[in-house]
Amino acid sequence: VAQRAFVIGLDVGGTKIEGILVDKAKNQVAACRAAMDATSVERVVESIAAAIQTLLDSANLMQESLAGIGVGIPGQVLEGVVHLAVNLKMERYPLEEELTRRFASPVRVENDVRIAALGVYQRLFGAGQIRHLAYLSVGTGISAGVILDGRLHRGVGGMAGEIGHVQVDPRGARCGCGAYGCLEAFASGSGMVASARKALVEGRPSVLAEIDPSILTTHQLFAAAAGGDTLAGEIVKTAARYISQALQWLVMGYDVERVALGGGVLRSRDVMTPAVLRAIQRLRESSLLAAHMLPEDKIVLLPEDFNPGVWGAAGLI
Amino acid sequence: VAQRAFVIGLDVGGTKIEGILVDKAKNQVAACRAAMDATSVERVVESIAAAIQTLLDSANLMQESLAGIGVGIPGQVLEGVVHLAVNLKMERYPLEEELTRRFASPVRVENDVRIAALGVYQRLFGAGQIRHLAYLSVGTGISAGVILDGRLHRGVGGMAGEIGHVQVDPRGARCGCGAYGCLEAFASGSGMVASARKALVEGRPSVLAEIDPSILTTHQLFAAAAGGDTLAGEIVKTAARYISQALQWLVMGYDVERVALGGGVLRSRDVMTPAVLRAIQRLRESSLLAAHMLPEDKIVLLPEDFNPGVWGAAGLI
Repeated sequence: VAQRAFVIGLDVGGTKIEGILVDKAKNQVAACRAAMDATSVERVVESIAAAIQTLLDSANLMQESLAGIGVGIPGQVLEGVVHLAVNLKMERYPLEEELTRRFASPVRVENDVRIAALGVYQRLFGAGQIRHLAYLSVGTGISAGVILDGRLHRGVGGMAGEIGHVQVDPRGARCGCGAYGCLEAFASGSGMVASARKALVEGRPSVLAEIDPSILTTHQLFAAAAGGDTLAGEIVKTAARYISQALQWLVMGYDVERVALGGGVLRSRDVMTPAVLRAIQRLRESSLLAAHMLPEDKIVLLPEDFNPGVWGAAGLI
Repeated sequence: VAQRAFVIGLDVGGTKIEGILVDKAKNQVAACRAAMDATSVERVVESIAAAIQTLLDSANLMQESLAGIGVGIPGQVLEGVVHLAVNLKMERYPLEEELTRRFASPVRVENDVRIAALGVYQRLFGAGQIRHLAYLSVGTGISAGVILDGRLHRGVGGMAGEIGHVQVDPRGARCGCGAYGCLEAFASGSGMVASARKALVEGRPSVLAEIDPSILTTHQLFAAAAGGDTLAGEIVKTAARYISQALQWLVMGYDVERVALGGGVLRSRDVMTPAVLRAIQRLRESSLLAAHMLPEDKIVLLPEDFNPGVWGAAGLI
């Protein structure tokens, strides 16, 4: 087996790790999906190391075969140090250094949504086909990654695209960050579930009232909306409006060629994504400028089996 | 007089032209402010040419002394061609070519707010002191210019920063662009005046009811708000909230080191700017994240006598 001919890309989350092993031509050789034990920093590092080892084992490779390892982390990352990743209990943790030591390979650590943008750019467009791309990820949280002139734009503190806590309406519900009416309070998975819970506690009629509010999921909320439930429908419509607004800020602010939509909430092709596309279509119909700035082909939905995070991570090497 | 040792910078608007003549060390040698005759494209070009001639004459210079002319235009500019500038009646007009022909000097034409950002960056910070800067201009319209890694970010169509028509609340008033509830409908000078007119026509009590609605100005609106008028105060507060929101999108989206506030509406230091700063202060008090992302020194107010547009235009050469 050729030396230093393979690359690993990991997408590390608070509950699971996904990873791929690719060869020099960027063909996928192996993939893995493993549970994340996030009870302590040490366990998190062990979980990451175990995923890397699983990928090596499944292709019968030694660590000497690795050209490098790219890792996407849900948090603020600056020069390989995880400054803050609440779901991984990491604060100023030198993850790049630690993994380099363990695997004797070059390691690059970066924010997960930033590199997902890179993954979309490299895999769906092929570097060079377009110059500017924004990737909007809506899941438990909301954030974006932006490629400008073919390069990842990080900003001064590596926080460019952290739009989840823009206060879109101060009359909205209180967000985890303390402020009222953040984008995430209206439009993230956790924000939508919290809105539903609050309405149910206040006695709003809904088919969701049959579910224990403490275990309500976005999946159940979307199913209720699809089934015509008024409360669930309102929550989805409001969220869609704010996701559409975020998409407009990205397009108008950066003047990108494409905006790609991803993340757990927008993977729901039957409810949320159509609601967002309808909101944008209504806007186009009302305004020639909007129709010009937001043509249909500007908005890209990811293939359902494509995880941009692992590809972007592999692309870091 | 040294050959090609001087630069002219022009800030061209729908009603007036401001300009400066600077030497190679960027010292101001002359300045002018002239009326714009925007009744036809030909008159607009004559007005611009007259302003250039006025600057040359006032310093006793021939056009051979010019190293170049930079021009800021309120509209979409791509590679020296004014694609659309409604207030100047220009559509696909090759202004750079026309002025180069007339003055036998290198000419650079660019969007006015984009180059105002450049002017703020070069004059207030000195290139290199900071890497990333956003300039938010609130006047008759609203738009932004962004410097990333020390360079003007234009985007694919030269429209980066054209955030005035993001639909911030579809329940809002209809905007000139056709859509409902654009940022400009709530927070631009013209949007605020339109809101006041509508409320007055509907019979809302206000000291503004004594003024002919068709000639109502933002100046009168701000004076009424400062005097405690409820209607005017509400309009200003709503506008401040949306300007604060735009500022958050710029900071969170780009992760810039500084955001500078400018434009006719924010030049009103006694009413509008304090209202915006109060809105941001409230946000900081509610959220540690906001306090961290929006510290006081991140927001820069321009010196009242500083026109960033003319300096940015001169900086194009």
